[in-house]
Amino acid sequence: MTLEDLAARQRAFAEARAWGPFHTPKNLVMALSAEVGELTELFQWLTPDEATSAPQDPAARARIEDELADVLLYLTRLADVLGVDLIAAAHAKIDRNETRFPPNIGRAALDR
Amino acid sequence: MTLEDLAARQRAFAEARAWGPFHTPKNLVMALSAEVGELTELFQWLTPDEATSAPQDPAARARIEDELADVLLYLTRLADVLGVDLIAAAHAKIDRNETRFPPNIGRAALDR
Amino acid sequence: MTLEDLAARQRAFAEARAWGPFHTPKNLVMALSAEVGELTELFQWLTPDEATSAPQDPAARARIEDELADVLLYLTRLADVLGVDLIAAAHAKIDRNETRFPPNIGRAALDR
Amino acid sequence: MTLEDLAARQRAFAEARAWGPFHTPKNLVMALSAEVGELTELFQWLTPDEATSAPQDPAARARIEDELADVLLYLTRLADVLGVDLIAAAHAKIDRNETRFPPNIGRAALDR
Repeated sequence: MTLEDLAARQRAFAEARAWGPFHTPKNLVMALSAEVGELTELFQWLTPDEATSAPQDPAARARIEDELADVLLYLTRLADVLGVDLIAAAHAKIDRNETRFPPNIGRAALDR
Repeated sequence: MTLEDLAARQRAFAEARAWGPFHTPKNLVMALSAEVGELTELFQWLTPDEATSAPQDPAARARIEDELADVLLYLTRLADVLGVDLIAAAHAKIDRNETRFPPNIGRAALDR
Repeated sequence: MTLEDLAARQRAFAEARAWGPFHTPKNLVMALSAEVGELTELFQWLTPDEATSAPQDPAARARIEDELADVLLYLTRLADVLGVDLIAAAHAKIDRNETRFPPNIGRAALDR
Repeated sequence: MTLEDLAARQRAFAEARAWGPFHTPKNLVMALSAEVGELTELFQWLTPDEATSAPQDPAARARIEDELADVLLYLTRLADVLGVDLIAAAHAKIDRNETRFPPNIGRAALDR
């Protein structure tokens, strides 16, 4: 399944529920932000090691997958409403990052 | 291009820069959250109408595509590090949403 | 009651529950971010007019006050752990903003 | 200086710049969220130990104080626009938390 299929499925889902008027860019940015908050909540009190091993616990994994899915769903819907090709934009960004951050730049790039 | 291709490209990008130790789940959740903050900043002072027409301005569109790309890149990287299949998780979530929110439920579902 | 009183009360609250090891700067930044996500969720589907009148509804007001409180509590706790005087920092920032944004600059300042 | 003084100063600041129409609840929630994103960015790649010692470096401390200030400023402005007494709401929330989380509940409370 591709991201285009996912966007099409969400578009149909929103249309069937007459949610178009609510799915404005500002509202969807807020919904995306709220879902990232729910994802953050799953990890906030974990030690780094606990966070790394969290997906090994089936119940924790289910919650993580659920929140990651919500983030992707609102991101895809927002991009669709704005008419942006997410995958193309992401590859264009990596192209630029390859110039900005030469291999072996190491941590320096992270401390800008 | 698929999301799997994108994840593979990012994995290679991170490995070439020895960024593995920094790409922990907690750090990537924070980076994802910071990028959503940058996306939010682009829309925060716009009226709903201005937000809807923002992609028609080439400079605004470039900034929006850039921030949407950053959000997708960190989301894809986080899912890869956690071993989660994002597209499968998203479709599973829509499957559940189709039961939770029957067609024509309208706004009620949004006000829970 | 001052912000210092609030910080002192939270410090005692955390100590009584042995939460010190969890209240690291990174964890508290994540908790703050998650709480802002919950606040965002309250407003995301409202029209601008509905958002403005939301505090007139007692149940909505209670939810808003609860989430604003959580944001302030984690912000105060984070500043306390980092040894930052929040009120002084805020006034220093307004001092700088008075230079950066002269009166009557209007919207231009918001579009940077 | 109290939070009320800070709110009054921001209100005057916004009025002098005719920013009232932009300072709607939804816009201010977005601005608050974007500022928390900037704060998050300062900590995202730091190890827990680096994050704890960050305020000892004067340049890092200045950036942290600046972002904490921005978060407090938008939070105070948002509460003012909504007519909410932040300090009272925060104490009411701690009152409830003292019932929800008895002393020595320890980590259990964090894992709900």
